[in-house]
Amino acid sequence: MVSRLKVYNTLSREKEIFTPISSPYVGMYVCGPTVYGDAHLGHARAAITFDIIYRFLQHLGYKVRYVRNITDVGHLENDADEGEDKIGKKAKLEKLEPMEVVQYFTNRYHRVMEKLNVKSPSIEPSASGHILEQIKMTEEIIKNGFAYVTRGSVYFDVNKYAASNDYGKLSGRVLDDLVAGSRELDGQKEKKNSLDFALWKKASPEHIMRWDSPWGEGFPGWHLECSAMSAKYLGKTFDIHGGGMDLMFPHHECEIAQAKASNKTAPAKYWLHNNMITINGQKMGKSLGNFITMDELFSGKHELLERAYSPMTIRFFILQAHYRSTLDFSNEALLAANKGYKKIANGIKIIKQLTHNGTAEKDNKLIEEINKLCDICYNGLLDDFNTAITIADLFNLLKKINSFYTRQLNIDLLDEETFLKMKNTFLILTEEVLGLSNENIARPESFIDGLLLIYKAAKDNKEYDKVDQIRSFFKNEGLVIKDMKHGIDWAYEE
Amino acid sequence: MVSRLKVYNTLSREKEIFTPISSPYVGMYVCGPTVYGDAHLGHARAAITFDIIYRFLQHLGYKVRYVRNITDVGHLENDADEGEDKIGKKAKLEKLEPMEVVQYFTNRYHRVMEKLNVKSPSIEPSASGHILEQIKMTEEIIKNGFAYVTRGSVYFDVNKYAASNDYGKLSGRVLDDLVAGSRELDGQKEKKNSLDFALWKKASPEHIMRWDSPWGEGFPGWHLECSAMSAKYLGKTFDIHGGGMDLMFPHHECEIAQAKASNKTAPAKYWLHNNMITINGQKMGKSLGNFITMDELFSGKHELLERAYSPMTIRFFILQAHYRSTLDFSNEALLAANKGYKKIANGIKIIKQLTHNGTAEKDNKLIEEINKLCDICYNGLLDDFNTAITIADLFNLLKKINSFYTRQLNIDLLDEETFLKMKNTFLILTEEVLGLSNENIARPESFIDGLLLIYKAAKDNKEYDKVDQIRSFFKNEGLVIKDMKHGIDWAYEE
Repeated sequence: MVSRLKVYNTLSREKEIFTPISSPYVGMYVCGPTVYGDAHLGHARAAITFDIIYRFLQHLGYKVRYVRNITDVGHLENDADEGEDKIGKKAKLEKLEPMEVVQYFTNRYHRVMEKLNVKSPSIEPSASGHILEQIKMTEEIIKNGFAYVTRGSVYFDVNKYAASNDYGKLSGRVLDDLVAGSRELDGQKEKKNSLDFALWKKASPEHIMRWDSPWGEGFPGWHLECSAMSAKYLGKTFDIHGGGMDLMFPHHECEIAQAKASNKTAPAKYWLHNNMITINGQKMGKSLGNFITMDELFSGKHELLERAYSPMTIRFFILQAHYRSTLDFSNEALLAANKGYKKIANGIKIIKQLTHNGTAEKDNKLIEEINKLCDICYNGLLDDFNTAITIADLFNLLKKINSFYTRQLNIDLLDEETFLKMKNTFLILTEEVLGLSNENIARPESFIDGLLLIYKAAKDNKEYDKVDQIRSFFKNEGLVIKDMKHGIDWAYEE
Repeated sequence: MVSRLKVYNTLSREKEIFTPISSPYVGMYVCGPTVYGDAHLGHARAAITFDIIYRFLQHLGYKVRYVRNITDVGHLENDADEGEDKIGKKAKLEKLEPMEVVQYFTNRYHRVMEKLNVKSPSIEPSASGHILEQIKMTEEIIKNGFAYVTRGSVYFDVNKYAASNDYGKLSGRVLDDLVAGSRELDGQKEKKNSLDFALWKKASPEHIMRWDSPWGEGFPGWHLECSAMSAKYLGKTFDIHGGGMDLMFPHHECEIAQAKASNKTAPAKYWLHNNMITINGQKMGKSLGNFITMDELFSGKHELLERAYSPMTIRFFILQAHYRSTLDFSNEALLAANKGYKKIANGIKIIKQLTHNGTAEKDNKLIEEINKLCDICYNGLLDDFNTAITIADLFNLLKKINSFYTRQLNIDLLDEETFLKMKNTFLILTEEVLGLSNENIARPESFIDGLLLIYKAAKDNKEYDKVDQIRSFFKNEGLVIKDMKHGIDWAYEE
């Protein structure tokens, strides 16, 4: 398969032709959520970005194994007030169990992802479920001389590694300028160098999540899980590593170092990073306290929200920007996204209604135009998954589809092949690739059809009170009745 | 809390007063699915049984930590035709990855459970995620002299254990009569005794899922995961261990042996087992090839099915029998369950519509009768979670509720307290405890209200064609219009 797909590789800072290591197989690893809180708009953007990449690669014919992890080795501690002794005597059931917290937020994350029509990854491994693999990788790194043990903890020796490797290449940082990552819990005094990071941490007495290891009871460092799990499920070198831009340093830089120090090979060929969601120009994130959770968006319950926004509206909002651009949150932008999504939903509805009949004379100019409009729709996605451009091109195609629907243009001027191409291009790109199809506007057909029948009779009898009444029943459901020359139909209100 | 709840304990073969080890905390461990295939009716029964127990214990005020595992350490092997060499040379991505299979079926299981309105357990640990804990437990059992190592595998020494423990007590079996469990893969020649079971198995070259251990590369035996994970999350001794009756031997018997041999204590105080689903008197199960998957039930696509059955119909079907009785599958029984569920759904709908007004004179006899009918509804559940009896009692209460709804009885003859008790008893038991509430009959209120308005006008104008037409719109959605003396309403068709 000769690839027409270009992807921007953070590693080279260039768009490169996408050439999988062993086509048609593609291995993709993406950093998933930390499940100690609810998903917010930033999580949604990362998940939707790589969902599009996953869907489009599959659409192009690749066999993708998509691994997205769950970071569940958290830093929950027992209540310090109770003292170590009291905690030790408490029955298991009375103590806080981190895995209960993990399960709760994992379930909630999954429910949000389902609403956003984000496909489940092929494998969703958790850090806590791969302690053995992380211990093994740490042993390997120690054996190769790139880590050292201090008082029950193991640290990666960044200086030693950097002497023979390009530490900082991915994130474009220079070693001398770097200061220690802020995620380090403690242990600065145990390290040879402030840049060194933990592969394994000795557990303090109040630390709940802990496992046996060759270095005593402890827990793995945060960067290690992704290295261990990507190698386990995708091999030591795989095609794509993705994540949010804020993970580039230190997380991804450390992953590269860990992989090279243990497996002696770079982990991923292409590194892809999605940009942030901003709010008044500032990054939206948990640490800044300016985030909006997905449930708040779905319900409208947040001081920054003027109304509730449906999952598909949010998906559309995210897809309207290229994943490498920042995307600024505003109610205006979400309202526009709502309109845009409804336009697409109406397009999906009407193109499914259109039928073609081969008898009329063909219009070669129109046929050529439609073919071109269809082909163009792929260009955006093929150019580093630029959904913003593809959506604009789909709207251009939709204008024609609307003309066929309202009979301004006769659909039979197309040949069968072009008609089907138009239908498939629109439906496959909107529903399958962009994943814009599953919004559930509850609509029992018999009620809709029934009311439309009664509406038509009322209109014929000039019972305008009843006509208005029925129109308002539709409006209450977010629908409008369309009176067209060739008949009556309904549509989503845009 | 003085417990009024009685549970049948398989261990004692008696109903016992339920007294948690450290009330109000309750720890419950239930054997979950093996995720190498789709959930069938048998899985649904186990899940729904313990869902009711979980819900009812919470309703009684207990703080329940409910752990249900995922058995994912399967026996997938690489294709034997390819030979070991070829497999070794294959890229990671080209090989079968068991965790991909596991993820696929786990996701499908979760989706089915959600449809059945089965609550997620507090923790859902997987066997593959707890290898370290299983190795540690095996080491402990070896250290205590109840297991031996042979050629890279570790076996539990049943004879040695039985010399000082009551092996067979749970399942009521006598050691001498026993033969080896049929789940054993191989290794009969490695064992001292045919009853010995594997704690750890050496992995053959074609075995894919494998981990490092003190005994070489291998994988844990099937019984071990539940012992290791229940102890980890609930403590060495916890309140309830549940599962299907078919797991009593060898699985649960082995769990008891493992726990006693490592932790020197019996794992669970109460052992609860749900009975099987039968089909023409024979157990429904994967091994017998006579099972019906949940998706087949939901879609009606199976030669034994006359039609599709909704998730709530199936839930109701299962709840109509006590969990310790066998439940025979038949289309007739499912059709009856569909009717029964719709009756409950209508009851929920109308009791939410009923309002009370305190001015009328009270009828003390009626008040006493309603109070009694309400109290009785708890008796079934308190007697070993007998949902069959509670459902029958709810139907008796519903008769009265219907009389109030149709105004045969004046609701204002009740005092406010009794009215609220009736409302709460019915709603809490049906929706929260029996979990019968979430069936989604799509019904945009404005369409229903709109059509009912038009229906009423048509009836007043004696336009009987239109009246019939609107009735048929409702019928198509599974609803009926109710013409009552005091007004027009709709209901689910029973």
